[in-house]
Amino acid sequence: MGSKAAVSKGQKKLNALFEPESIAVIGASRRKEAVGFAILHNLIAAGYKGKIYPVNPKVDELEGMRCYHSVDEIPAAFDLAVIIIPSSVVPEMLRQCGEKGAQAAIVISAGFREVSKEGAKLEQEVSKIADEYGMPVLGPNCLGMINASSKMSMNASFSATMPKEGNIAFLSQSGALCTAILDYAKGENIGFSKFISLGNKVDLNEVDILRYLKEDPETDVVLMYIEDLVDGRAFIDVAREMTGDLENGKPILAIKAGRTAQGAKAAQSHTGSLMGSDKVYDAIFAQAGVLRLDSVAEMFDLGIAFANEPLPKSNRVAIVTNAGGPGIMATDACVRYGLEMAELEQTTREALAKVLPPTANLNNPVDVIGDAQHDRYEQALKIVAQDPNVDGIIVILTPQAMTDIKEIADVVVQIDKQTDIPLIACFMGIVDVTPGVKVLEENFVPHYRFPEETARALGAMYRYQQWMKRPRTDVVHFKVEKDRATKILKQMKQPEPSVLPIHDAMAIFEAYGFPVLPYGLAHHEGEAREISQKVGFPIAMKIVSNQVVHKFDVGGVRLNINSPEEAAKAYCEIVQIVSSKSPGALIEGVLIQRMAQKGREVILGMNRDPHFGPTLMFGLGGIYVEALKDVTFRLAPIRELTARHMIKMIRAYPILKGIRGEKPADFAKIAECLERLSQLVCENPQISEVDINPLMVYEVGLGAAVVDARIVID
Amino acid sequence: MGSKAAVSKGQKKLNALFEPESIAVIGASRRKEAVGFAILHNLIAAGYKGKIYPVNPKVDELEGMRCYHSVDEIPAAFDLAVIIIPSSVVPEMLRQCGEKGAQAAIVISAGFREVSKEGAKLEQEVSKIADEYGMPVLGPNCLGMINASSKMSMNASFSATMPKEGNIAFLSQSGALCTAILDYAKGENIGFSKFISLGNKVDLNEVDILRYLKEDPETDVVLMYIEDLVDGRAFIDVAREMTGDLENGKPILAIKAGRTAQGAKAAQSHTGSLMGSDKVYDAIFAQAGVLRLDSVAEMFDLGIAFANEPLPKSNRVAIVTNAGGPGIMATDACVRYGLEMAELEQTTREALAKVLPPTANLNNPVDVIGDAQHDRYEQALKIVAQDPNVDGIIVILTPQAMTDIKEIADVVVQIDKQTDIPLIACFMGIVDVTPGVKVLEENFVPHYRFPEETARALGAMYRYQQWMKRPRTDVVHFKVEKDRATKILKQMKQPEPSVLPIHDAMAIFEAYGFPVLPYGLAHHEGEAREISQKVGFPIAMKIVSNQVVHKFDVGGVRLNINSPEEAAKAYCEIVQIVSSKSPGALIEGVLIQRMAQKGREVILGMNRDPHFGPTLMFGLGGIYVEALKDVTFRLAPIRELTARHMIKMIRAYPILKGIRGEKPADFAKIAECLERLSQLVCENPQISEVDINPLMVYEVGLGAAVVDARIVID
Repeated sequence: MGSKAAVSKGQKKLNALFEPESIAVIGASRRKEAVGFAILHNLIAAGYKGKIYPVNPKVDELEGMRCYHSVDEIPAAFDLAVIIIPSSVVPEMLRQCGEKGAQAAIVISAGFREVSKEGAKLEQEVSKIADEYGMPVLGPNCLGMINASSKMSMNASFSATMPKEGNIAFLSQSGALCTAILDYAKGENIGFSKFISLGNKVDLNEVDILRYLKEDPETDVVLMYIEDLVDGRAFIDVAREMTGDLENGKPILAIKAGRTAQGAKAAQSHTGSLMGSDKVYDAIFAQAGVLRLDSVAEMFDLGIAFANEPLPKSNRVAIVTNAGGPGIMATDACVRYGLEMAELEQTTREALAKVLPPTANLNNPVDVIGDAQHDRYEQALKIVAQDPNVDGIIVILTPQAMTDIKEIADVVVQIDKQTDIPLIACFMGIVDVTPGVKVLEENFVPHYRFPEETARALGAMYRYQQWMKRPRTDVVHFKVEKDRATKILKQMKQPEPSVLPIHDAMAIFEAYGFPVLPYGLAHHEGEAREISQKVGFPIAMKIVSNQVVHKFDVGGVRLNINSPEEAAKAYCEIVQIVSSKSPGALIEGVLIQRMAQKGREVILGMNRDPHFGPTLMFGLGGIYVEALKDVTFRLAPIRELTARHMIKMIRAYPILKGIRGEKPADFAKIAECLERLSQLVCENPQISEVDINPLMVYEVGLGAAVVDARIVID
Repeated sequence: MGSKAAVSKGQKKLNALFEPESIAVIGASRRKEAVGFAILHNLIAAGYKGKIYPVNPKVDELEGMRCYHSVDEIPAAFDLAVIIIPSSVVPEMLRQCGEKGAQAAIVISAGFREVSKEGAKLEQEVSKIADEYGMPVLGPNCLGMINASSKMSMNASFSATMPKEGNIAFLSQSGALCTAILDYAKGENIGFSKFISLGNKVDLNEVDILRYLKEDPETDVVLMYIEDLVDGRAFIDVAREMTGDLENGKPILAIKAGRTAQGAKAAQSHTGSLMGSDKVYDAIFAQAGVLRLDSVAEMFDLGIAFANEPLPKSNRVAIVTNAGGPGIMATDACVRYGLEMAELEQTTREALAKVLPPTANLNNPVDVIGDAQHDRYEQALKIVAQDPNVDGIIVILTPQAMTDIKEIADVVVQIDKQTDIPLIACFMGIVDVTPGVKVLEENFVPHYRFPEETARALGAMYRYQQWMKRPRTDVVHFKVEKDRATKILKQMKQPEPSVLPIHDAMAIFEAYGFPVLPYGLAHHEGEAREISQKVGFPIAMKIVSNQVVHKFDVGGVRLNINSPEEAAKAYCEIVQIVSSKSPGALIEGVLIQRMAQKGREVILGMNRDPHFGPTLMFGLGGIYVEALKDVTFRLAPIRELTARHMIKMIRAYPILKGIRGEKPADFAKIAECLERLSQLVCENPQISEVDINPLMVYEVGLGAAVVDARIVID
C-alpha cells in the first residue's frame, strides 16, 4: 500500500519547506478556476516576502511576473517547489527540481493512490525520488501548507483564506477539512503558526512534521486530524518528547477518524490507508501523552485554552459568577471533567464579605449576584485569585440588566494578566455579550458560551498537567536467560504458526523471570510420582500433546492431586483416556505443576498488530471482563509507569485495589510481569502471541503465579 | 422547605397566565433602572395587544398611560397581575388581586425563601393565597414569562430581548440562565413559543407548566433547565403522556443541574431546593421519556432538530458529502450515537454512478467530490432520499473553491421539503458558509458546524423515536395474598425501624408470589428433622435472632445439609454455638430452606427516596457490580416494559444474555419479580427497605429463586 516507503527515515530538514527563501510554482495557471492559479495568487496575496518563480511551458507572464517555461529556465536555485501538474508527470518534474537543487517540494496534484493502481505506482516513484535527492515532499493530493508567521506570511495552499498569526499548528490528513477549519478559525478569530495538509503522506508524515514543530519557536500547541499513523512507535517517541518536555512542553490534541468499524471502512474506501485497531490507537495516544478527541469543535475549544493560558498547578477551581444556575452547571461540569471545587480560605471569605452584597454567596461558586458590575467582579476575582487553594478560575457572566459587559471583560483581561493561574471565561450568550467577547479575544483570554465547555477546557489542561508532572521512568531491562528461551524457540522451527508445548512455554516464562510454579514433564508413571514429590502438593496434571486441543474436555486435565500415589494413578488414567478419545494423538508427556493458591485472576496478553508491532494487553480474569471488554492495551516496549497505568486504567481497578475490606493486590508484581512480557516479546520476534490466563495475583507483597499460559510462534 | 405546599394540586387553568386579555403591572416604575420600569416597557415594546394597567401609588402616568394608585382603582377586572413590589407586601397585594378577580399572577419580586426564614414564611402565605383564590402564581423570584406567539407578542419579563416566534417552549429554574439563553437564541436565530422563568416555584411548578404545554398547539418541543423536581411521580405522568403521545408527541429535553454531589451542594446554597439523589433523577427522566443532557449547547442543538424535522423511521443514515475526511468523522459519530450506515440499494448506486464523476464514492458515505456544485448535490440527494434503506440524511458541505454554497443550501431546502425523512445539514465553517447557513435557517433546516454535532442530533431523534414506538404496557396488578402480608407486618409494630425475621420476610415474598424455595422455622431438633424432609434436600440452615447480626461469622449458618439426621445435628450445633458466642441473644428458631441450584445471581432492591418515594434497584450480584456500581433505578410503581428496561440497561447485561455459549437468563421471571416488588412496596408503605440478594436466576423458562433477602420496616 505504499506505506512502507513512507515510514520515517530519520530526521528531515524541513526549513526549506516552512521557511523557503524562494518558491517555484510549477503548473501556475492563468485560468482563475485552476488550482495552479489559486496557489500563485494566494502566495502573492498573503504577502510572501521571498522570490516566486511561476512555471508553465505555455505562459510568459503571470500576475505581473515572468513565467518560466521550465524549471531549467529559472535563473537560480530555489528552495521549495509547489507542484500542480497532472500526476503522471509529477515524478519527472520532481526529479528536475531535485537536479536544480530544490530543498523541498509540495505536491498538490491528486491522481495517485487514491484513484488507481497506476497512481499508487507513481507514488512509489515520488517516494524514491524524494529519498534520492534528500528532498522532503509534502503530499501528494493535498491542499498545501501555510506558514502564518508574520515573518513568512506564506500561503502555499489553494485555500483563499489566510489565517491570522498565532501559536497553534494544525495538521490534517483531510484537505477538505482544512478549508472548513480555516473558515471556522476566521469566524472564531483563531490564529495559527503553521497549517499543514498532509495529503497521501507518501514521504513526509505526521512524525516528520511533529519533529519540526517540536523545535518551532512559533508553535505552542499542535492540533491534528489523522486517518492513520504511518509509524506508531516513532509517533510515540516524538510526541512523548514534545508533550512531556518540562521546559517547553507542547500539548498535542488529535482526532483519529475511523474510530468505529464503519468509520474505518469509510476511511479505507476514502484513502486506502491502513487502519490499525482503534484500541491500539488509544494505546498509542495514551503512551504519547496526546489528548484524543472526537469533535473538531472540542479540539479547538481546548486548543485555545492551551494556547493562551498557563497550566493549572492542580485541579482546584474557583468559580466567580453573577448567576446561581450557571454556577451549579459549571460545578457539575468541573467534577465531571476531573476538577475539584476549591475550598476557599476563611480569610478569602472574609475579604469577599467586605466587598459583596449580603445576599452574595461567599463559598465557591462565588455568586456576585445579578446586579454585579465590573467593580464587583474585579474585587471578587482579585480576592479569589490570591487564595492559595485556587489553581484555576472560571468567571461566568450572564447578560443581565445592570451588567456592563465590556467593562467586565476589561477586568477579566487585567486579572488574567496579573495572575499566573489559568483564568477562563464563560460569557453566556451571543449577541449582547459580543462587546465583551471581542475584548477577551483581542487579549487572548479563552472564552466559551456555556459552563460545560468552559469546565471541559480547564479539565483538559489539568489532565495534561498531570501528564507533564508524572514521574519519569524508563524501560527496565531485566537480567534474563535469553539464551535458554532462544534455544527453546529455535527447536520449534515449524512451517506454520503453532502453540508451544506448555512445558516449553513455562520454561520460557521461567527464563524471563516470571513467577512460575514448580513443574516437570512426566513421561511415565514413575516419573510422575517422582516429579510430583519434587514440585510439592497439591498438584495439577495436564496432558501435553499438540493434537489435543480441548484438553479438559477429553479428560486430559486433573486438579487437586495430593500424593505421589494419586499422581502415578492419574498419570496412567490421563494417558489412557486421551489415547482412547484421541487415538493417534502424539503424547509428549504429562505436565505436573504445583497448584496456585486462590488469589485475584488477571490476564496478560500480547498480539502483534500488523501495523504497529507487539501490543500488550491487560485485564481482569472472568466473564465480567469478557462481557464488558474491560482491558487496556499498550505498545511494547513499555516503561515502568506505563505498566502501572495499564493496571490502573481498567474499569474494574477497584477490585484489584480491594473492596469489602480486602487488601490491595500486588500491583508491583503485576506491573513487573507486564514489563517482563514486554521484554520477552521485543527480544523474541518469533513469538507472535502470548496469553497468560490467568496470572493469579496475591495481596500486596505476596507476588503472583502464572497458572496457565500459551505462547504462539510464527 | 415550603415544597410540600408546592406539590401539584391538580390541573390548573393557565390560560390567563399565558394569554391574558389584560395585565396589571403592579409596581410599575418610572425609574429606568427599575425592574418595574423594564416589565412595563417590555410589554409595550414587544407589542402586547391586550389592556395594560400600570399600578403605582405615587405615579399618575407612565409611558403615556394612566397609572393607577391601587388595584382597587383599576376600572375593570384584569386577567393577570405581574407583581414587582417588595416581598413583604406581596401577600397582601396578591390577596387584593384575588379579590379583584385576577385569574393568574407572576411574582417577579425576590426576597423570599432564597434570602431568609421570613422570606420562606412569606412564600407560604403566597402559596396559601394562590390556593384560596384558585389563582395560579408563577414565581416568586423569577424573570417573568414571554409568550412569543404573534397572536400575543407578550413580554412579561424584565429581559429586554423578545425572542422570535417558534415552536420551542423553554422553562428554567434559573432566571439568569434565561437572559443568557435569550441572547444565545438571538444569535442563533432560534424561535420560541413560550419562555418561562419558574423562580421559586411556590405555586406553579414544572408539572403545571408541562400540563399546559401539552395542550398548547404552538409548542412542539420543550426544553427545560431545572434544579429539582417538586413531584417526581406527577412529572413522570405528564411528561410520559407528552413524550409518548402517538398523535402529537412532544419531545422534552432537560438539564437537571446538581448532578454531582458538589453541584448539588452549590444548588442547595443557591435555592435551598430539595435534592433527590441524582440516580433517581436519571430514573425519573428515563421513565418519563425525557432526554437528559448536560450542556445547554447540546440541548439547543438537539431541540432545533426536533423542532424542524420529522422523526426517522429507524436508524439507517445516508451521508452525502463533498469531502472524505468529514464523511469518516460523521460515520464515526453516527455509530457512536446509535445510528447505522444505510446499505444503499444496487439501483441507488447505479443511479449515482450516472450522475457522479468516476472518482466519486457510490457507497455510503456518498462522496460527491470536492468540486461538486449544487447540481451534483441535488442529483445525489434526490437519489439517496428515494432509497428505501435510508431513514435519515446528513448532508455535509466543506467550503471549497468551486462550492456554490448558497445554491447548495437552496437545493438542501428543496429536498428537505420534498422528502418525509429527516434531513440535517453540516455546513462546515463559519464565515464562508454564512450565505448558505442563512438560507437553511430561513427555511428551518437544522444545521451544524461539524459532523459530530450533526450525528448527535439525528441520534437523539432516533432515540426518541424508539421511545415513541415502544410497546405500551401497564402496571400489572398481580393477585397476591395481601392480607397475609399485612398481618405479618402488623405483628411487627416496633418503635424503631427494624429488620423482619427471615421467615417472616420469606412469608411476605411468598404471599406476593415471588419464587420462594420451600422453608420452615424449626424450634427444636425434632422439628428440624421433620421440616428438612418436607422442604427437600440439600438444605441451608440459618439462625433466626434479631440480636445476631453477623450470622455467618458466629457459626449461625450451615449449608449443603443432605439428610434429616444431619439436619437435627446441625440444629443442635447451631443453637449451641450461637448461644455460647452471643449469650443472651433471643433465638426464635432455625430457618430451614431448600438450597437453590447454581444460576446467575442478581440483586433486587427498594429504598424510599425521601422526596420521590419507593425507588427500585436492579443489578447483578457479585463484587464486580459493587466495584463498578452497575445498577439501574426506577420509581415504583413500574410497568412491564420498565421492568424489562431495568434489566437491559445495566452494563453487564451481556452476562445475563449469555456469553461463552450460555443460554439467556430467564428475563421474564426477573422482570416479574421486579414488578411484584413494585406492587409489594406500593401496597405496604410500612416497608422502608427491601434487599433480595441474591435472586438466583436460571436459564430462560426455568425461573428464579429468592436465596436471601431482607425487609426493613418503619
